[in-house]
Amino acid sequence: MGKSSLDLVNECDRFPYHQDDPTAYIAHMEKYHSFHVNGYDPVLGYMLNEVVARFDWPKESWTVDPTNRTVTLLGSTPAERNQAIAQTLDAAVKQDRFEVLRGWRNEMYPVYGPDGEFLLEMERSASPLFGIVSYGIHATAYVEDENGLRLWVPRRSKTKQTYPSMLDNSVAGGMSTGEMPFECLVREAMEEASLPEDVVRVNATAAGCVSYTYVRDNRAGGETDLVQPEVEYVYDIKLSADITPKPNDTEVEEFCLLTIEETKKALANGEFKPNCAVVLIDFFVRHGILTPENEKDFLEIITKIHRRLEFPTASHVTN
Amino acid sequence: MGKSSLDLVNECDRFPYHQDDPTAYIAHMEKYHSFHVNGYDPVLGYMLNEVVARFDWPKESWTVDPTNRTVTLLGSTPAERNQAIAQTLDAAVKQDRFEVLRGWRNEMYPVYGPDGEFLLEMERSASPLFGIVSYGIHATAYVEDENGLRLWVPRRSKTKQTYPSMLDNSVAGGMSTGEMPFECLVREAMEEASLPEDVVRVNATAAGCVSYTYVRDNRAGGETDLVQPEVEYVYDIKLSADITPKPNDTEVEEFCLLTIEETKKALANGEFKPNCAVVLIDFFVRHGILTPENEKDFLEIITKIHRRLEFPTASHVTN
Repeated sequence: MGKSSLDLVNECDRFPYHQDDPTAYIAHMEKYHSFHVNGYDPVLGYMLNEVVARFDWPKESWTVDPTNRTVTLLGSTPAERNQAIAQTLDAAVKQDRFEVLRGWRNEMYPVYGPDGEFLLEMERSASPLFGIVSYGIHATAYVEDENGLRLWVPRRSKTKQTYPSMLDNSVAGGMSTGEMPFECLVREAMEEASLPEDVVRVNATAAGCVSYTYVRDNRAGGETDLVQPEVEYVYDIKLSADITPKPNDTEVEEFCLLTIEETKKALANGEFKPNCAVVLIDFFVRHGILTPENEKDFLEIITKIHRRLEFPTASHVTN
Repeated sequence: MGKSSLDLVNECDRFPYHQDDPTAYIAHMEKYHSFHVNGYDPVLGYMLNEVVARFDWPKESWTVDPTNRTVTLLGSTPAERNQAIAQTLDAAVKQDRFEVLRGWRNEMYPVYGPDGEFLLEMERSASPLFGIVSYGIHATAYVEDENGLRLWVPRRSKTKQTYPSMLDNSVAGGMSTGEMPFECLVREAMEEASLPEDVVRVNATAAGCVSYTYVRDNRAGGETDLVQPEVEYVYDIKLSADITPKPNDTEVEEFCLLTIEETKKALANGEFKPNCAVVLIDFFVRHGILTPENEKDFLEIITKIHRRLEFPTASHVTN
């Protein structure tokens, strides 16, 4: 008996909901400080109390309030805030305070305010320490012909720092500061799957997004129980049978063209990286593979993978 | 300047969220009693205090607790509960206590418990008085050819009790007790759009669901501010140009084949019934018409139209 679709969703959307059990939720929240930027009301992330205790917080840049369990970043411009964060992280790296920072990526992730304004950016590997919302793109490349619908599924490299050897979505990647979803897709499709730009621009269709609040476990590497709210813009890429995705860097081992049944089996076996399982489940829902009549947890699945996050989120509209 | 997609979503998903403002939410909840069935923990619906005050509640079938603001239906079997509800509604109709009951439908809507078990059923027109979750199907029939994507849009009859003359989804209908989603679609497609069963079975694809908590306004007819949480299973029906939906009863005035631009304009003008606007927005998201780059409220829209309801919901799985 393998994992159900709801099991897979629950492995990804792991943070409790207030509506399910208000008392338990309030008790759970005592494990966290909330991350704030001075001058803005909303909570921007949830930080584990142990994480807060392990950082040094220079008083000129930070206010930590242990009673209300808040960590507030001072500074009145993004530049001031970015400098303060960078210095704080730099000190933590030098003293090797966090395992997750050993996986330094040299990629900057943005944080947005209540009106979608850019507040600051921080190194990607630090984002789960602050519990901020991160953004990415996930695409499912597929072939639909007389053999039915088949999906292009890559296996992550054995040497990849996070989720080594697990199955992945055809194309996936995080969006750094300033990057737009479709352009991120085009870039990643070449980098990870050797898909030419013109093929992606013609064949990829935006199909919504999934959002959920992940809580890191061992497979993510580094400290566990860190909160990681995520928004993944999803795309479908319909390919003709003569176009074959191929690894283009060391991150992907190989691509296989799996039938729906093979994909379902790999999902039930827990072979997919957790958030990639969620993207496939969303694909299955949109394409009539999971239906109200064959999936007992249909509604619970759909609402959990479109979670309304507790934090301000970005608009990626181009004007 | 017409209505934005988020405006349209907010006209449908009108009930406040705890996470947006816990204090305001708690204050808001004082307007309601919660509806319970004896022996089951979860709240099954929100009833306006004025509605509770206007009913007679025979003590042998009901317990009303004004302190905790609960209305609890007694009885240990569905049959007992159904009889109690039917008697209570019958008395209310005879005394003409509620405008919404003047629109008696002779259709039964089911209520489910925490493990998806059938608890009771009640007359459809009474469901907003109890604030219970209702279920339905909404389908978008479309043609995709050299002229692009066009949608079959019906106009509701001028004499329809609810939302007269407004635009609607190609096929839509509520699911009575015991009805399954796809079979409901097949039935309604014939009744409302004269679409033959074989055409629907071959061309309709399940594409997920939308869920939201509506609060009734004038256009719904009868008492306003009644809470109406809804789950609508959504379907796409791709039709060839030679198949034309036609009215088959007095509920629909006419069908028009609208371009995406024409549909968007009618949406912005507020011409669609509120939950039909939501289903079209979901269609636009799934078909890459609304994208992260062209819709500033992309994430907010997607999460609100897949609201995780505060009540137990049904599984419609067939075993």
